[in-house]
Amino acid sequence: MTSARGKTREAIVSAALELFREHGFEGTTMRAVADRAGVSVGNAYYYFSSKDELVQGFYDQLVAEHRALALPELDGRRDLADRLGTALRAWLTVAEPYREFAGRFFAVAAQPGNPLSPFSAEAGPARGAAVDLYREVLAGSRTPVDPDLARELPELLWLYHLGVVLFWVHDTSPGAARTELLVDRTAPMLARLVRLSKLPVLRPLSHQAVTLLQELRA
Amino acid sequence: MTSARGKTREAIVSAALELFREHGFEGTTMRAVADRAGVSVGNAYYYFSSKDELVQGFYDQLVAEHRALALPELDGRRDLADRLGTALRAWLTVAEPYREFAGRFFAVAAQPGNPLSPFSAEAGPARGAAVDLYREVLAGSRTPVDPDLARELPELLWLYHLGVVLFWVHDTSPGAARTELLVDRTAPMLARLVRLSKLPVLRPLSHQAVTLLQELRA
Repeated sequence: MTSARGKTREAIVSAALELFREHGFEGTTMRAVADRAGVSVGNAYYYFSSKDELVQGFYDQLVAEHRALALPELDGRRDLADRLGTALRAWLTVAEPYREFAGRFFAVAAQPGNPLSPFSAEAGPARGAAVDLYREVLAGSRTPVDPDLARELPELLWLYHLGVVLFWVHDTSPGAARTELLVDRTAPMLARLVRLSKLPVLRPLSHQAVTLLQELRA
Repeated sequence: MTSARGKTREAIVSAALELFREHGFEGTTMRAVADRAGVSVGNAYYYFSSKDELVQGFYDQLVAEHRALALPELDGRRDLADRLGTALRAWLTVAEPYREFAGRFFAVAAQPGNPLSPFSAEAGPARGAAVDLYREVLAGSRTPVDPDLARELPELLWLYHLGVVLFWVHDTSPGAARTELLVDRTAPMLARLVRLSKLPVLRPLSHQAVTLLQELRA
């Protein structure tokens, strides 16, 4: 987003993140966000009708930055483990400035039923854009995948991504080095499981996983 | 625990859980807990030096109830999927009365660095007793396991248990029916993965998982 409207939007989200860091999510008002961003309160409300929507705006911005960094880096890579690791490391890079905020914010977003949970209806667009990136990760790899599994795999990889995020939120190591280790080790393991999913001994497992996902969505 | 001291301890924990449900964790004082339990404040502090310790007491009680229900039900079962499902369903049974509390409490316990997180040093005894139950689940099954993996598997199964708990905390279906479905479907999948871990094609994966756990503990 480089239009004037996009820039205003980004300025409001940045101001909100600064204030969330300083005063917490609960302690931040829309008025303070507008003041910090240098816009009128009415203008801030024009873009975001609530603080929750501001956080959704942050999610949208984060996933857009993630895609912008990851997609060019995926270019020319064909190995699934390499592609998966590249996508996850790109996320760690763009998310790093927000790690402390994420740690404190996690308690809010992780509350059951909260509209800021990654599974909420409200988070649908950000979730869709993230799942779509994992669809690209798969599509560009040379690993053959069982067609039934292939349909569900982008969402399964996004669930794995969420697991990494959960670990990262609790990771206090400098530069999130432990999360990097987790990614370096688990991306090849996941890629191997995907590759093996066509073997007769593992095909039942992959079918069960697909069925379960469908049952849980029903 | 059926001694007089054990009974007092349990009465204090039960009173605390009632008050946490009514007023939330933050809104509950040790004095109110003592009043509700019918003991003096000094006596309450004799058993629990803080509200955090009360929650640890709740964890200890829950894991003791879980073991007391699960162990006899495991008796005579030899199939790993059956044993794993039995252990998890026993947990769902003993935890059901606390599901609403768990949902509201989750935001507190899930905060990074919180002593009430299941990974904290403070939760060590409850964690040890829970991992030990999964050691029993494995030991009594007829599924042969690679010796390297066998050492780490109780902890890996406990991590799977935590994943089920995470799902359950967010499960709003009546009687936690969706979590039961998750257990019914995933316990056989996990058991199959364990059984397949000795196959040459999967052995590298199981070794990588063992190495990763060791690296993360280091």
